[in-house]
Amino acid sequence: MTAASGTGATELFGKVALLGVGLIGSSLALACRRHGLAGRLAGYARSAESREVIERLRLTDSVHAEPAEAVADADLVVLCVPVGANAAVAEAMLPGLKPGAIVTDVGSVKQAVIRDVGPLLPEGVHFVPGHPIAGTEHSGPAAGFADLFEERYCVLTPPPGADEAAVGRVAELWRRCGSRVETMEPAHHDKVLAMTSHLPHLISYTIVGTAYDLAESERGEVIKFAAGGFRDFTRIAGSDPVMWRDIFLNNREAVLEILQRFGEDLSRLQRAIRWGEAEVLEDRFRRTREIRRGVIQLGQAGTFDAREPHKDDEAG
Amino acid sequence: MTAASGTGATELFGKVALLGVGLIGSSLALACRRHGLAGRLAGYARSAESREVIERLRLTDSVHAEPAEAVADADLVVLCVPVGANAAVAEAMLPGLKPGAIVTDVGSVKQAVIRDVGPLLPEGVHFVPGHPIAGTEHSGPAAGFADLFEERYCVLTPPPGADEAAVGRVAELWRRCGSRVETMEPAHHDKVLAMTSHLPHLISYTIVGTAYDLAESERGEVIKFAAGGFRDFTRIAGSDPVMWRDIFLNNREAVLEILQRFGEDLSRLQRAIRWGEAEVLEDRFRRTREIRRGVIQLGQAGTFDAREPHKDDEAG
Ligand SMILES: NC(=O)c1ccc[n+]([C@@H]2O[C@H](COP(=O)([O-])OP(=O)(O)OC[C@H]3O[C@@H](n4cnc5c(N)ncnc54)[C@H](OP(=O)(O)O)[C@@H]3O)[C@@H](O)[C@H]2O)c1
Ligand SMILES: NC(=O)c1ccc[n+]([C@@H]2O[C@H](COP(=O)([O-])OP(=O)(O)OC[C@H]3O[C@@H](n4cnc5c(N)ncnc54)[C@H](OP(=O)(O)O)[C@@H]3O)[C@@H](O)[C@H]2O)c1
Repeated sequence: MTAASGTGATELFGKVALLGVGLIGSSLALACRRHGLAGRLAGYARSAESREVIERLRLTDSVHAEPAEAVADADLVVLCVPVGANAAVAEAMLPGLKPGAIVTDVGSVKQAVIRDVGPLLPEGVHFVPGHPIAGTEHSGPAAGFADLFEERYCVLTPPPGADEAAVGRVAELWRRCGSRVETMEPAHHDKVLAMTSHLPHLISYTIVGTAYDLAESERGEVIKFAAGGFRDFTRIAGSDPVMWRDIFLNNREAVLEILQRFGEDLSRLQRAIRWGEAEVLEDRFRRTREIRRGVIQLGQAGTFDAREPHKDDEAG
Repeated sequence: MTAASGTGATELFGKVALLGVGLIGSSLALACRRHGLAGRLAGYARSAESREVIERLRLTDSVHAEPAEAVADADLVVLCVPVGANAAVAEAMLPGLKPGAIVTDVGSVKQAVIRDVGPLLPEGVHFVPGHPIAGTEHSGPAAGFADLFEERYCVLTPPPGADEAAVGRVAELWRRCGSRVETMEPAHHDKVLAMTSHLPHLISYTIVGTAYDLAESERGEVIKFAAGGFRDFTRIAGSDPVMWRDIFLNNREAVLEILQRFGEDLSRLQRAIRWGEAEVLEDRFRRTREIRRGVIQLGQAGTFDAREPHKDDEAG
């Protein structure tokens, strides 16, 4: 990581403003620095605490308490706040926004940002909504790392009539961060992500909540014996509550629809357990392996080690 | 790993027979070798393929196609087969079982093995059911590693009147493998594990199945965008179908009971999404973090890296 950004030759944008510098914003800042994608980086964060961290870690060249100040002169503005905060932050940046600037975002829901932010933007500003399918359960400006987006997909959902040059430049930004870029209808994005991300998080929050509600004594045992499978759910359910609240409120239809299907499928397995239908269980458990193989083959599996961190790596 | 087992001085058992040498059996073999816990190791496996692998990897000193041959002269016999296979394998070993031998198991359900195996054992043979709360989604004799059990809990559920010396020796075996040993009522074990292991697996199988049933085109996208949370479920749902079929068939009551609670909790969140109850969502999402903190503090979280294997470790 170099402290001074902008290596000149391969610079994609003169100035990039990150509105919100949490996990995603800080990772993008670090990736821009590493790959020399921005001449200058400006960051906006809501809280003084976060601004202090951003300054200390030198994540951006300047740090601002006002969106309008951060975006002044920026060629690219990236909204990196929870989905429900997009409208207010976008509204607040308008006075500083440069004509011809490109505005993008990283939100986990795409129809909502088009609905909330699209109408606010003046003529001549190019809006290219996006979503890097990359993340961890950590949040805040200190959680980022430069290779978060590497080998991950990034989905762009440009509205009809979007400026092709602007879409191309945003796509290039993500490609240079190491991502594979895809373009998609916003409604389709929201449906697919309801399955691959929103439902898994809802289920994880639920199951950890079910455990939380057990008697105090059992709660301790649940923690002790978490290595039996539960620990993965606790990790996912450790994600930021506000970010996820906003996702569910803003992708309601798609989440409820997939939840309906999930509920039916769970009832079927529940019935098979109740009535001892061994073949039904084995058959269902067997065919899901195909999906796992696909995830591994596509290099989207991440790395899980059943052992604790910092142990000798001498597995037999 | 030393090829010759038995270091003498700290040897706990003269001969240990592993009936079933899959993930757990092979890990136990490797751990016994590393820590010099057994004078001699014998392995039984059902299939010629597995026996070939066990021989090639020298997991045990002798490899047998018959349980009765494997247990001949053994001081400790460890059943390491799927829960539903315990009775048949135990029955088959009886002709070879030495008077005074200790029989234990590693099955994920404890009331069932007491019901199925307990009555078969002759007077003078000591039965100490056990369950190491450690595992991965891989199976078979090549999947094991010597430190699988390190820092993990191992639960023993001795039946009333169990021989204390025998319980003590089995506990010592696991402690020397690096585990923290706890003793528990079998019914209580089955209830706690239904929450921390069986329900998470059932849910994972279900959600991956729901994705599998999507239209072919969407299935491909689900795989692409798995990094949004889904990938963890595919890993858990990659576990052995027969092992898990047997667990659900043999811990039916406890699983159905916890599934009922989970269903109610999920309905509550579903309702909150439908009616836009922001505070309910945020509140539920917030309090589950306490559980995650507990899991980390107790060193039971394992290690997840959002990146793919074999990448540079230069996170910012
Ligand atoms: N985390 C993931 O895995 C992931 C993956 C892909 C996309 N996303 C999307 O990326 C966006 C940011 O997520 P993140 O994980 O980076 O979140 P984060 O780490 O919690 O950071 C959120 C940032 O937004 C600011 N913020 C929060 N609420 C705000 C408000 N009401 N007004 C103004 N600023 C506000 C925060 O400021 P303070 O620090 O001052 O509070 C912080 O700078 C979200 O839209 C999310 O859907 C997340
Ligand atoms: N995997 C985990 O995470 C985990 C954790 C804790 C406890 N356990 C428990 O440990 C036990 C073994 O699990 P594992 O993961 O080691 O399984 P595994 O890797 O699939 O190995 C199972 C072993 O049992 C043999 N086997 C399977 N069915 C049999 C049958 N009907 N008759 C005789 N032998 C049979 C297999 O022989 P072949 O190879 O010849 O088929 C293999 O040697 C199970 O009771 C499970 O509940 C598992």
